[in-house]
Amino acid sequence: MPRAFVVVAFLSLLSTPVRSSAASPKSAAVDVRATAARFLGGALAERRGHAVVTSLTDSAGPRLAGSRGDERAVAWAVEAMRAAGLENVHTEPVTVPRWVRGVERAEVVAPVDIALHVTALGGSVATSPDGIVAEVVEVASLDELKAQAAKDPARFRGKIVLYNKSMLRTHNFEGYGTAVDVRKGGAVEAARAGAVASLIRSIGTGYHRLPHTGAMRYEAGVPQIPAGALAAEDAELVHRLLARGGAVKVRLVLTPSLAADKAASANVVGELRGREHPEEIVVIGAHLDSWDLATGALDDGAGCAIVLETARLVRTLAGARPRRTIRVVLFANEEFGLSGAFAYAEAHKAELARHVAALEADAGAGRPLGVGVAAGADAVPRLRALVDGLGTVLPGEIHATDEAAADVMPLHAAGVPVFGVEQDVSTYFDWHHTAGDTVDKIDPEELARATAAFATLTFVLADAPTTMPRATPHPLPWRPGK
Amino acid sequence: MPRAFVVVAFLSLLSTPVRSSAASPKSAAVDVRATAARFLGGALAERRGHAVVTSLTDSAGPRLAGSRGDERAVAWAVEAMRAAGLENVHTEPVTVPRWVRGVERAEVVAPVDIALHVTALGGSVATSPDGIVAEVVEVASLDELKAQAAKDPARFRGKIVLYNKSMLRTHNFEGYGTAVDVRKGGAVEAARAGAVASLIRSIGTGYHRLPHTGAMRYEAGVPQIPAGALAAEDAELVHRLLARGGAVKVRLVLTPSLAADKAASANVVGELRGREHPEEIVVIGAHLDSWDLATGALDDGAGCAIVLETARLVRTLAGARPRRTIRVVLFANEEFGLSGAFAYAEAHKAELARHVAALEADAGAGRPLGVGVAAGADAVPRLRALVDGLGTVLPGEIHATDEAAADVMPLHAAGVPVFGVEQDVSTYFDWHHTAGDTVDKIDPEELARATAAFATLTFVLADAPTTMPRATPHPLPWRPGK
Repeated sequence: MPRAFVVVAFLSLLSTPVRSSAASPKSAAVDVRATAARFLGGALAERRGHAVVTSLTDSAGPRLAGSRGDERAVAWAVEAMRAAGLENVHTEPVTVPRWVRGVERAEVVAPVDIALHVTALGGSVATSPDGIVAEVVEVASLDELKAQAAKDPARFRGKIVLYNKSMLRTHNFEGYGTAVDVRKGGAVEAARAGAVASLIRSIGTGYHRLPHTGAMRYEAGVPQIPAGALAAEDAELVHRLLARGGAVKVRLVLTPSLAADKAASANVVGELRGREHPEEIVVIGAHLDSWDLATGALDDGAGCAIVLETARLVRTLAGARPRRTIRVVLFANEEFGLSGAFAYAEAHKAELARHVAALEADAGAGRPLGVGVAAGADAVPRLRALVDGLGTVLPGEIHATDEAAADVMPLHAAGVPVFGVEQDVSTYFDWHHTAGDTVDKIDPEELARATAAFATLTFVLADAPTTMPRATPHPLPWRPGK
Repeated sequence: MPRAFVVVAFLSLLSTPVRSSAASPKSAAVDVRATAARFLGGALAERRGHAVVTSLTDSAGPRLAGSRGDERAVAWAVEAMRAAGLENVHTEPVTVPRWVRGVERAEVVAPVDIALHVTALGGSVATSPDGIVAEVVEVASLDELKAQAAKDPARFRGKIVLYNKSMLRTHNFEGYGTAVDVRKGGAVEAARAGAVASLIRSIGTGYHRLPHTGAMRYEAGVPQIPAGALAAEDAELVHRLLARGGAVKVRLVLTPSLAADKAASANVVGELRGREHPEEIVVIGAHLDSWDLATGALDDGAGCAIVLETARLVRTLAGARPRRTIRVVLFANEEFGLSGAFAYAEAHKAELARHVAALEADAGAGRPLGVGVAAGADAVPRLRALVDGLGTVLPGEIHATDEAAADVMPLHAAGVPVFGVEQDVSTYFDWHHTAGDTVDKIDPEELARATAAFATLTFVLADAPTTMPRATPHPLPWRPGK
C-alpha cells in the first residue's frame, strides 16, 4: 500500500475533534501502520525481550521488596534504561515493608504421615518454631466457611482451615480474580471463626507440586493467624484423606517475619521526550520487584522487558519521536503493598493532570489478545479509530473496563486514562508466584508479539493528534496487595 | 468373527512343536482374542487402576526402603492382593539399607546470591552441617571431565563439579539410558579428579523447578564426596552465570545419612494357581517402594496397579484359569539396591527352572507401544504367533532385547525368559524421582490400556500350549541401583 494512501486513510479516521494544538500540527503525522509493522518485524526478528528478562533475572535474582535482589534490580534498571537510550534516567525513593520468609514445612501427621509442600503467604505471621498441630477442616469458599461457622460456632475452633477452592484456567484474569479472595481474606475469616491457621489450595492452574505465594492481609481487631498455601497435589491429598472419614491432622511450621523497620527501595524512571508536547506524559510501567520464591521472569520480568523494549522500538524504529513524552517507570514493590505505585502518584501529583495515559505490562509473556480501556466516555471509539487497520500487530477487541493494572490504579484514581494490552494468561498461572517462575517459561515469540502490541499502543497514544478523555477521579477502595 | 473360527485360527498359528503335556490338553484352549478384548473393555470401563494407585499412595505415602511408608505399603499390598482374589498371599522377608534424606540447600553465593533447588542423590554422603562453599566447574559428560582432568590435573581440585548433561525426551528409555551415567557414576569421577562435591543437572525432561533424585554409587578406594541434583532451571542459571566469565561459587548443604543397621522390609507375593501346570510359574512384578520425595504414583504405583489389576482381570474375565500359575510379586527396595529382586531370586532358586516367564511393570502409566522379549532363540516369532490379531489390545512390535526390567534381572540372569510391555514414557521423566510424582499425573485411560496389554501378555504366556525358550544364564554385571 502506498504510504500517501495510508496516511490519508489514517487521518480520515480521526472523526473526533482535534485540540487546537493539533489542529495546526507542528509536524507531519507518522505513518502508524508502517510503524506498527516495523515494531512487529523488529521485535520478532531480534527477540531481545527474552534476553532482557534473562539479564534482569540472572543479575538480580529474586527481588522481593527490601531484599538485596531488589537493590540489585534497581541498579540493573538504571543501566538498562540507559542502554535503551532513555533520557533523564533516575531513581525516585520508595519506602517498602520488608517481609522475610522463614522455615516452611507442613505434613499430615494423622491418619498417616506424609509431607506436604507449603509456602507462607506474603505477610503471614509465624507459627511457633515447633509449629501448630491441629485437625484440618476443609471448605470450598469464604461463604461456605461463614455459613458453617454461623450454623456451628465450634466447627473451626482450634482447627486449621483449608480453603480448597480450585481456580479455573482462563485466557484472561477471570479465573484468578474469582479464586483469589481466599488467599487475600481467608486468614481473617478463618480467625473470626476461631481457627488457629489458614491454608489454601494454591491459587494457580498447574500441577507441579509448587505452592503459590502472594499477598494476604489481616484486619484490625481480628487475631492474626499464620496463613499458607499448599500445592494443588497436596490440597487434593488432604481432601481425599478427609473423604475417607476420620480426623486429618496437620503439623504446620511457618516462621516468616516482618522487619520492624521499613527498607529503602526505588522506582526507576526514564523518558523519551516528546517532540511537540514534552510536558504531556504517557506512562508505561511494569514492576521491578518479584516474589522471593523464584526470579520472577513472568511476574514481572516480562513486563519490564516489554516496556524497555517498547522504548527502544519507538526510539529506533518509529522514524520520529512521538508528539508526547513516553515515561518508563519500573515500580518498586508491587507485590507486597504497591509502595512504588503510591509513591509515584504522590511524588508526581502536581503533574498528574498532564499524564495523558498510563499503561502497565504485568500479565506475563503471552501473546496479545485485545486492549482494555479505563478512561472517559468515547475513549473506546476514539482509540478504535486510531488503531484501525493495525489488527495484525494489535489484535482483538478494544473494550471498556473499570479495572486498571495494579501500579497504575493510583493514577487511574486521579483521573489518568488507563490502557492495557490484554495478554493470553492461559498458562501464566501455572507458574505465577511459584518457584517455577523462571526465564525458561517465556516463549520468545509470544513475548515479542506482546511487546510489539504494547509498543504500538504506546506510540499511538503518545503520537495521536488529541489526547484521550480522562477517567472519573475516584478514591481507591484500599491500598491493596496483589 | 465366530468363536469357533477364532479358536481354529489361533491353533493354526502354533507353528512350533508343542510339549507332550499340551499335545493332549486336559482343557480346551481359551479364545485369546475374545479374552483380550474383554480385558481391554473391562479395564477401560472400570478404570480401577487409578483408584488402586490412589489407595496405595494415600495409604502409604512415600515409601523409601526401610521407612514407615515402606512398612505401610507392605501391609497395604497384602490387603490389596487379598482383595484382588489372589491365593497364597504372603510376605517374604527382605533386608534393606536405610538412607534418610536430611537438609538440602544450595545457593549461588557469587557473583550474585540466588537460591537453587537441589536434592541429594540416593546414597550420597553428607556435607558438614554448614556445607561446602566452592567454585563450580561445569562439564557436559563423564568423558569431558576425564579429558579435562587428564589435560589439567588441577582443574577440578577443590571444586564442585556440575555435570550439565541434558536428557533427550524419547518415547522409550533411550533418553534416560543415555543421560543417567552422570547420576550413577558422576561423584566417583569427580572425586578422582579432586572435586569436593558433584552436582548434576537433573536426569529428567521437565521444567518444573523440581530436582530429580535417584541412586548413585561410590567405589572402593575413591573418596566419597556429596552428590546432588539441581533442577533443570538452576543448572541452566549456573551455566549462564559461568558463560558471563568469572567464578561462580555455590554453597551446598546436604545432610543425608545411611543408617548403620539394615532394616526389615518384605516382598509381597500372591498367586492365581494354574489349572493344568500349577508348578509352572509366570511371575508378574512391580516394585512397592518409591523414592522419598513424593508418593511414587508413576514409579511404581502404576506398576503395582497394573499387576494387581492384571490378576483381577484374569481371575474375573478370562473365563478359565490359565494353564500355569501367575505369581504376583511386589518387590521391596528396587530404587536403592534391588534388595527385593535379589532376595526373591535367592529364596526361590530351587524353583527358578519352573519360572517360565517373568514380566515387570515399571515404566509408569503410559499407553502400550510394543513388547520386548529377552529370552531364547525363536521366542520372538513364537510370541508373535501367539498374539497375532491382538494388536488393538497389545499394539506395536514384538522385538528381541537384551534388557530386562530391574527386578527381573536376577531371574533373567538365571535363564528365566523375560517379557515386557513397552509403554510410552514421553512424559514419564518429567516427574520421575521428583516431588511431582503424584497420582494426578496418571491418565486413567492410558493406565487402563497399559493394564489390558499387560494382562493380555500375561494371559497368553500363562495359557499357551508350550512354554517359551529359556534365556542364556549369565552373571549380573553388578548389583545395580536403578
